[in-house]
Amino acid sequence: MKEYYYNILLDPAKLPDAWYNINSDLPSPLPPPLHPATHQPIEPSALQAIFPNALIEQEVSNQPYISIPGEIMDIYRLWRPTPLRRAYRLEKALDTPAKIFYKNESVSPSGSHKLNTAVAQAYYNQKEGIHGLTTETGAGQWGTALSIACSMFDMSCIVYMVKISFKQKPYRRTLMQSYGAKVIASPSDTTDFGNQILTQDPESTGSLGIAISEAIEVAVKSEGKMKYTLGSVLNHVLLHQTIIGEEAKLQMDSVGEYPDIVIGCVGGGSNFAGLAFPYAQDVLKKGKKITFLAVEPAACPTMTRGLYAYDFGDTAGMTPLLKQYTLGHNFMPPGIHAGGLRYHGVAAQVAHLIRHNIITPISVLQNPVFEANILFAKCEGIISAPESGHAIRIAIDEALKCKETGEAKTILFNLSGHGHFDMSAYEAYLNNDLPDYELGEDILKSGFDSIPKV
Amino acid sequence: MKEYYYNILLDPAKLPDAWYNINSDLPSPLPPPLHPATHQPIEPSALQAIFPNALIEQEVSNQPYISIPGEIMDIYRLWRPTPLRRAYRLEKALDTPAKIFYKNESVSPSGSHKLNTAVAQAYYNQKEGIHGLTTETGAGQWGTALSIACSMFDMSCIVYMVKISFKQKPYRRTLMQSYGAKVIASPSDTTDFGNQILTQDPESTGSLGIAISEAIEVAVKSEGKMKYTLGSVLNHVLLHQTIIGEEAKLQMDSVGEYPDIVIGCVGGGSNFAGLAFPYAQDVLKKGKKITFLAVEPAACPTMTRGLYAYDFGDTAGMTPLLKQYTLGHNFMPPGIHAGGLRYHGVAAQVAHLIRHNIITPISVLQNPVFEANILFAKCEGIISAPESGHAIRIAIDEALKCKETGEAKTILFNLSGHGHFDMSAYEAYLNNDLPDYELGEDILKSGFDSIPKV
Repeated sequence: MKEYYYNILLDPAKLPDAWYNINSDLPSPLPPPLHPATHQPIEPSALQAIFPNALIEQEVSNQPYISIPGEIMDIYRLWRPTPLRRAYRLEKALDTPAKIFYKNESVSPSGSHKLNTAVAQAYYNQKEGIHGLTTETGAGQWGTALSIACSMFDMSCIVYMVKISFKQKPYRRTLMQSYGAKVIASPSDTTDFGNQILTQDPESTGSLGIAISEAIEVAVKSEGKMKYTLGSVLNHVLLHQTIIGEEAKLQMDSVGEYPDIVIGCVGGGSNFAGLAFPYAQDVLKKGKKITFLAVEPAACPTMTRGLYAYDFGDTAGMTPLLKQYTLGHNFMPPGIHAGGLRYHGVAAQVAHLIRHNIITPISVLQNPVFEANILFAKCEGIISAPESGHAIRIAIDEALKCKETGEAKTILFNLSGHGHFDMSAYEAYLNNDLPDYELGEDILKSGFDSIPKV
Repeated sequence: MKEYYYNILLDPAKLPDAWYNINSDLPSPLPPPLHPATHQPIEPSALQAIFPNALIEQEVSNQPYISIPGEIMDIYRLWRPTPLRRAYRLEKALDTPAKIFYKNESVSPSGSHKLNTAVAQAYYNQKEGIHGLTTETGAGQWGTALSIACSMFDMSCIVYMVKISFKQKPYRRTLMQSYGAKVIASPSDTTDFGNQILTQDPESTGSLGIAISEAIEVAVKSEGKMKYTLGSVLNHVLLHQTIIGEEAKLQMDSVGEYPDIVIGCVGGGSNFAGLAFPYAQDVLKKGKKITFLAVEPAACPTMTRGLYAYDFGDTAGMTPLLKQYTLGHNFMPPGIHAGGLRYHGVAAQVAHLIRHNIITPISVLQNPVFEANILFAKCEGIISAPESGHAIRIAIDEALKCKETGEAKTILFNLSGHGHFDMSAYEAYLNNDLPDYELGEDILKSGFDSIPKV
């Protein structure tokens, strides 16, 4: 094995210049998206009211690689390539024979991987003459990323922020405003759907599904001036994130390492897919053996306890129906601190690979996640996002299994973001004040009832 | 000129392995520190109650380079070398012929340059058998850095945090606690000096000078178990920061660039010195011409309006007397948001080079600083610390001067930290609610009265 330093950088000249499209290598084609009203396969052109043509093309493309335009490469180079780090101090603390590597996406200006797709989406929209973008945000990582991307392309940006987060996280709001975004608490009186929710429940604290519906409504009614953007779930979003795994492969190769296990947390699935898909290509095309672990919170167990079914992406039922694992588009998860993982569904591509036994889903409670976050902070110095802590927890668990068996496995996980705006969660954990939720079957059942019969 | 990408990385194998000691190249020797009681030059051994021998040796050393031990190098490599970036998007926004470069110290796990010396100080203390460290913190950058360093060397850590910051910044406190530090609001009832202050004024919101006195008292009374650490001002602290400038020189050289102007914000002076001193060596030894701009807040105008005199580093008068620029150790600056720049004095080495006309001090108001921070965020994506914004402001001003004159100067500044824990300051600025302070002569006069007659 080669000698190397634990902070494994990649020469900026070697930044990959194409995204990897896993559609080209899937063992069977993805089930097609269906029209929300007719339940028939939807024409790509039906998406033109909310997305620009270039992104619709990427959404349905089967090309194996899609070139990254130079303008996007220029902005990527503000923080990319991100470091790959061997967590040597964590390995020592665990006394494990396993090697633990992580890709550090927390160094992006927005603090997470989300900026990889935000920049791409802003670019393609601007190129097609769109002046502004709308979106939703929960924990705020996505809203922050889109705010930065819009500021870089001189576009306006409207972010519908789930009301409970808007109140609990005033600094996230200020962060987005600093980049020039307009941030609105959802449900709001600025949309028909928001007003409808407020009429039913004036005290509604909101949900991602509601915020998505509001953001789509604004884009649709703007008569082509604004478009809608989504921070995860869709094929083109996962595509943009594959730069993570492509870099990681080059970095792992540079030190002669190859992972036995690849781990990522999953809300919609984009950071997981970003790291995993370029390695999944090796499994699908070259017969390599890798265990892919997709980690979700037990309080929102989409992949581990959800149904594999067609469902909407939003609460109002405005999006196409996607075949996915879902808890039902009306499901309201408990208020765990990993706000980015509180989504009822999951990316169709990730769901498809679970069905094909390529990806293994797993769920964890939030107290063990924060225990892992604290150990990681003390060893590696980095305060992880609550979301990313789900990946850290499972990486640690796998390393501890190696300690028992004596196997020296190579573990790679995605540190999708930092937790600088999530310190209230750390405070609650340090004060032994963090609840954990085991969901009863009855709660899941009521969510399942909202899944349309297709 | 060579072709290069705007994110200029340094091969980790080239990480400098010695700190640069400017004492070896000063145009005249530094005035000696004086004993706080006798006002006679103090013996280094008198510092043993609060510092380990290795750091006392560095404090008085005249060796040009001091080797960085391997254990420190291993930890430095968790985040070093830090990126040097050309602020190309900022240049375009300003429409300036100037080239603007910045060293990005905000990528350290603690979020600022402070970790460079925290790791070194923890290491040398631990090596001499010290089990724990005490310190003070204002804005929290230094306390965070020392908390991380102590967690990495398995040492206990007690941080006296200025009470107003303790209340205004609960998340900074939680951050330090996450790394295992004990955080105490100062003035506190845990020390004689704290009790003395509380008796005089039970509502005291504290100051850095008071917190230093409390932290020193705890170390002195621990009977050798704990020592005190300072995050700036002293020679050995500035020494540890020179890794910043050494890296920057290698990175600038790698793209064929050399600065005409080097800029840093100054509280105690350590981030400024860290970037500037390795370049100052070229001026002192090789006759190069560089303009060094040391930027302080107008609300705490130590270098621009202070006296050049011997003064204490703390409020209680426990530290040696250092020849410096000072507003008087009892001076209480207004509550500007750049808490790290609210210090009555400045490093003796920086003061000495101002006296020798090598360094030029300059002051700015906080509203123009935040205006610069917002422009920088929109162009470069990074939310700067309020402190670092002082350097950004002057870099922009110099670039705008170039626009007027048509000169294509090369400007290099230190982005000493990010502002993720300072969003309340951004909020105030965005709400037009940020006061600015022009200090009257009477206010300065009352501070000067506390300067001892030596």
